[in-house]
Amino acid sequence: MSKIRVAVFGASGYAGEELLRLLLRHRQAEITAVTSRQNAGKPVSAVFPRFTGLDLSFVAPDVPAIAGNCDAAILALPHGLAAEFAVPLLEAGVKVIDISADFRLRSLAKYREYYGEHPAPELLKKAVYGLPERYREALRTADLVACAGCYPTSSILPTAPLLAAGLASTEGVVVCSCSGVTGAGRKVDLPYIFPECNESMRAYSVTAHRHLPEMEQELAVAAGVPEVRINFVPHLVPLNRGINSTIFLTPTSKFSDEAVEQAYKEQYGNAPFIRFLGKGKMPDTKHVTMTNFCEFGYTFDKHTNRVVLCSCIDNLTKGASGQAVQNMNIRFGLPETEGLL
Amino acid sequence: MSKIRVAVFGASGYAGEELLRLLLRHRQAEITAVTSRQNAGKPVSAVFPRFTGLDLSFVAPDVPAIAGNCDAAILALPHGLAAEFAVPLLEAGVKVIDISADFRLRSLAKYREYYGEHPAPELLKKAVYGLPERYREALRTADLVACAGCYPTSSILPTAPLLAAGLASTEGVVVCSCSGVTGAGRKVDLPYIFPECNESMRAYSVTAHRHLPEMEQELAVAAGVPEVRINFVPHLVPLNRGINSTIFLTPTSKFSDEAVEQAYKEQYGNAPFIRFLGKGKMPDTKHVTMTNFCEFGYTFDKHTNRVVLCSCIDNLTKGASGQAVQNMNIRFGLPETEGLL
Amino acid sequence: MSKIRVAVFGASGYAGEELLRLLLRHRQAEITAVTSRQNAGKPVSAVFPRFTGLDLSFVAPDVPAIAGNCDAAILALPHGLAAEFAVPLLEAGVKVIDISADFRLRSLAKYREYYGEHPAPELLKKAVYGLPERYREALRTADLVACAGCYPTSSILPTAPLLAAGLASTEGVVVCSCSGVTGAGRKVDLPYIFPECNESMRAYSVTAHRHLPEMEQELAVAAGVPEVRINFVPHLVPLNRGINSTIFLTPTSKFSDEAVEQAYKEQYGNAPFIRFLGKGKMPDTKHVTMTNFCEFGYTFDKHTNRVVLCSCIDNLTKGASGQAVQNMNIRFGLPETEGLL
Amino acid sequence: MSKIRVAVFGASGYAGEELLRLLLRHRQAEITAVTSRQNAGKPVSAVFPRFTGLDLSFVAPDVPAIAGNCDAAILALPHGLAAEFAVPLLEAGVKVIDISADFRLRSLAKYREYYGEHPAPELLKKAVYGLPERYREALRTADLVACAGCYPTSSILPTAPLLAAGLASTEGVVVCSCSGVTGAGRKVDLPYIFPECNESMRAYSVTAHRHLPEMEQELAVAAGVPEVRINFVPHLVPLNRGINSTIFLTPTSKFSDEAVEQAYKEQYGNAPFIRFLGKGKMPDTKHVTMTNFCEFGYTFDKHTNRVVLCSCIDNLTKGASGQAVQNMNIRFGLPETEGLL
Repeated sequence: MSKIRVAVFGASGYAGEELLRLLLRHRQAEITAVTSRQNAGKPVSAVFPRFTGLDLSFVAPDVPAIAGNCDAAILALPHGLAAEFAVPLLEAGVKVIDISADFRLRSLAKYREYYGEHPAPELLKKAVYGLPERYREALRTADLVACAGCYPTSSILPTAPLLAAGLASTEGVVVCSCSGVTGAGRKVDLPYIFPECNESMRAYSVTAHRHLPEMEQELAVAAGVPEVRINFVPHLVPLNRGINSTIFLTPTSKFSDEAVEQAYKEQYGNAPFIRFLGKGKMPDTKHVTMTNFCEFGYTFDKHTNRVVLCSCIDNLTKGASGQAVQNMNIRFGLPETEGLL
Repeated sequence: MSKIRVAVFGASGYAGEELLRLLLRHRQAEITAVTSRQNAGKPVSAVFPRFTGLDLSFVAPDVPAIAGNCDAAILALPHGLAAEFAVPLLEAGVKVIDISADFRLRSLAKYREYYGEHPAPELLKKAVYGLPERYREALRTADLVACAGCYPTSSILPTAPLLAAGLASTEGVVVCSCSGVTGAGRKVDLPYIFPECNESMRAYSVTAHRHLPEMEQELAVAAGVPEVRINFVPHLVPLNRGINSTIFLTPTSKFSDEAVEQAYKEQYGNAPFIRFLGKGKMPDTKHVTMTNFCEFGYTFDKHTNRVVLCSCIDNLTKGASGQAVQNMNIRFGLPETEGLL
Repeated sequence: MSKIRVAVFGASGYAGEELLRLLLRHRQAEITAVTSRQNAGKPVSAVFPRFTGLDLSFVAPDVPAIAGNCDAAILALPHGLAAEFAVPLLEAGVKVIDISADFRLRSLAKYREYYGEHPAPELLKKAVYGLPERYREALRTADLVACAGCYPTSSILPTAPLLAAGLASTEGVVVCSCSGVTGAGRKVDLPYIFPECNESMRAYSVTAHRHLPEMEQELAVAAGVPEVRINFVPHLVPLNRGINSTIFLTPTSKFSDEAVEQAYKEQYGNAPFIRFLGKGKMPDTKHVTMTNFCEFGYTFDKHTNRVVLCSCIDNLTKGASGQAVQNMNIRFGLPETEGLL
Repeated sequence: MSKIRVAVFGASGYAGEELLRLLLRHRQAEITAVTSRQNAGKPVSAVFPRFTGLDLSFVAPDVPAIAGNCDAAILALPHGLAAEFAVPLLEAGVKVIDISADFRLRSLAKYREYYGEHPAPELLKKAVYGLPERYREALRTADLVACAGCYPTSSILPTAPLLAAGLASTEGVVVCSCSGVTGAGRKVDLPYIFPECNESMRAYSVTAHRHLPEMEQELAVAAGVPEVRINFVPHLVPLNRGINSTIFLTPTSKFSDEAVEQAYKEQYGNAPFIRFLGKGKMPDTKHVTMTNFCEFGYTFDKHTNRVVLCSCIDNLTKGASGQAVQNMNIRFGLPETEGLL
């Protein structure tokens, strides 16, 4: 069988670097183009010295030239720009796997509220939310995949099955998350220089982060209700990689340990990247660094009648580029884990 | 005026090191003894090379010998042991400032549940909870001070005034905290070696941490109710020092931004170590490292009708040894900030 | 072709964890046993949670039982113990790839000076030094491979070709190295807990480190002289992984930039894990983390007539387990990079 | 006695922040102006949140307005700019303590080679090199103090006494140093963002760093020879603060352990910030963080006939702002340690 030909658009950030790392190891994909407006003409290793020796250079993001030579395009572009590229790529018959936020929200109004005008609103309906453990079937035939965000991946995966099974209320959900600094991208800005991040921990975008409507949308879908409102507070912690999310839920009368086990088993029985640790076992970002796993455990606190979920992912792998590759694998009928173990 | 003579008991951990750092800079205190059973006879600098050149050695914790030569004893001993030392020290007329957990809980039953048998239950009533911003008056005459724990300090300080003023409900309080690794003490154990902590973040003691009953007790006192039940989840983050606590509260009908400002002003108007940042401003552990400040801000999320407080302290200073010195200053009628700015 | 059956002895440290990570991804090797006296019977994931979900358990290091079912044994045991296991394994016809220091030194006297009595001195002659870029041919038929140490790998690889080509003197060689904390093993000891290593940098074993005679031996071999004496100072830096070595050499009259290029090209022209960056380009540990590459560059300082080499490896991969797999690949006629890219 | 009135010029970087931290604690100095062109009008706490609550704002660097109200000006300005400010300040009778490199080099040619044209070459002769342990007497009456650089401070302090006493040769001196990231200033540039520095170690400016001529100048002065040439290689390590320098020297026939002890005793007998640890004892950056100490030890390696010195300082304190305050104390006849312990 011939390999999938993959073009990576906007590959000069950390998600791009991680994508290349994964695709270079993928046995059924080949990289046919890596674009960067700013770095066009430069070898990839000039931007990412980790790839010294690799014979691959950035090209300008010339869609007509690239589209003819690829089956899939993975977009690691800023939001807004991603949608602009998606349109001609889709028209050219290329499957588009978008790591940006452009196609995650089903509500155009929500997109406007959090991101501004949408460059291609007609595509919103076409997109499938790229969280394979929740949308695997739809992804098999999707032309446009909107890969789930990093914080949403870490929180939706452990939470959605409990809401779907009616084991927890959609009221009073609290998500308290911490992310390593690559989560901010390869951004050259004062708050992200080493001496400002090392020996520092701080909350940011409290109750106003752009990943909030994404989580609310997907938890509502899971629960089968029109709307869920949650509290979400992200923090920056001095890690390179990793997200740790702690989620507080109110159990319903149907809640029991057996029901929890059952809910996860039903939803994730065959999911190769889910590591449900069981009751009382808690994850560590370290255990999933540079992997595509989402690892989580839970505790029931009878004292307050609350359920606490703790979940860890690598924000660049399962939270971005690994997920994109997983989605690509599913879309092209490959083993879901190819290139990811 | 002659200086306060201070004996430090159990000074071979990080709280002990921080105590010495602060006391050496204190202009109205002199260290008359530093005890360590294990290190008796050794110079302090052999255990803490930071003090190379300091002419001070550990002695055995011989209470009769030491009591005659000190006005205050600061106990940086493990719980259980602290209470055993407090008894003879108090009998000898020494003011006892205890950094351990032995005298923080008013309920003997709670102490038993979380720590085991109490060695000196009769002293529980005598102890004043050593959180100066809440108990300043009582501390002025206290013979036995139970310095507040690190997590409780970080969460009670921003939360208590809102409960006291009736601006937030005592129901549904969630405290999600992260601590640097010195919070675990100078403990030589696999989970704390560098490669296990660096690039790692993990929850632990979920819903079962020993600081939980302490927070619940003090929030109940603040609210004027018999009991408050909260969710508390601590995490370990790769910092040397610092605690970041994010606290979720449900506002009452009395809640307003003006009322919040007023509540903090009334409670903390003169408190030299409180930094209330105001609405929408969030703290950073880095801003308070190696200081005795507690820095916090808040946000009101109308979307979910929740209040989010974010608070930072240095766990070794305001969370332990700085607080002990602050309590000592108050007890001995010294300026509250002496040795701490 | 059937896969190589590999037994890993002493797999409960960081080198063992890295070995498993690499072997699990190796397409032509299968793990038939993983031993740990202390953890026998436990699943591997109980010791290394990174492998949660892996169906593999530690067994006791019973050589007769294991030898019949493996082609290669990789020893990640402490020195002394490794030699004891090598004897019966070799007798049983198993190829032994030893990560310990037991067979690196050709001189029994040097071994005694640095490590004590040797448990199997008769094997010293049989061993081939496991630095593939220097001993590839001999490794193809070696029954006993003594994998090079981490500091020696980082310093010998850039230095040996210059001495071999007569471009630098064997006099006055200075090696100043820094290692991440996994270099100390998974050791539970006060100097290695997080708060003692984070925000710390310190020299240790100055001029007396056990890797010194190993470097001197191999540089003497390269230069074709009976003895080379060097200064070697290792330091501990707050990284999980990585060694950075800075090496100072005195050039001979034959030295020129062309000659340097030529020397490296001749020695390493086909070496897949050598990244010679050229003149004036300096490596970064980050570029080689979790890879098997050795990356180095050089500068000639005409001001002092000195050559400075800077070299980086990952101490657990190229400095230990990756090198072991590379040696195994060579020994068994597999592609040298299998499992390592 | 009235306090010294101090103006801080260019206080918006890390050296400025450290200066303020130290001066605020100084009992015989008061800050009369803090300048920042860019931040004029803003409260200091807007740039350095650590100082929240401090009633102090940046002003424009208007020398005539400021000079009348200060006794000393500490310049934390970029090189070039510092000299431009020094001229009018000196004319106005203000004592100038410069943290930049503008007045460190006695040779105008060397300045030009490393920094470009000098804005005030006539002042070079007037300047006293601000390394108190070497120039204490001259500093007592200096109008213009050129505070020693961070790397030079860490290497000159342990090395100069041995050269001065003829115990080591001026030939073949090698200085291998590592600095925390604040050493690069509060610089917003890709190589300094957290994910590029964390888990990274790299050499830079190999054999071409601007601190090289400064070290060579001062070692030549110490040795009483016209010129010394050394190898100096700096590295960036993932620390906030701290410099570790490892120095290799060739002993002369006069070298002995007694002579070393004697040399340091003579030179540094009364120096309050020198911690000579003795033979075989090695320093740790952690022991001197946020202090003004220089801590060092040595080893003699008879195997190669080399002396190895290891030295640690905090680059922002003893390597910059602490040293400036120490120089100021000396110049104004205050206790040398005021504000620094």
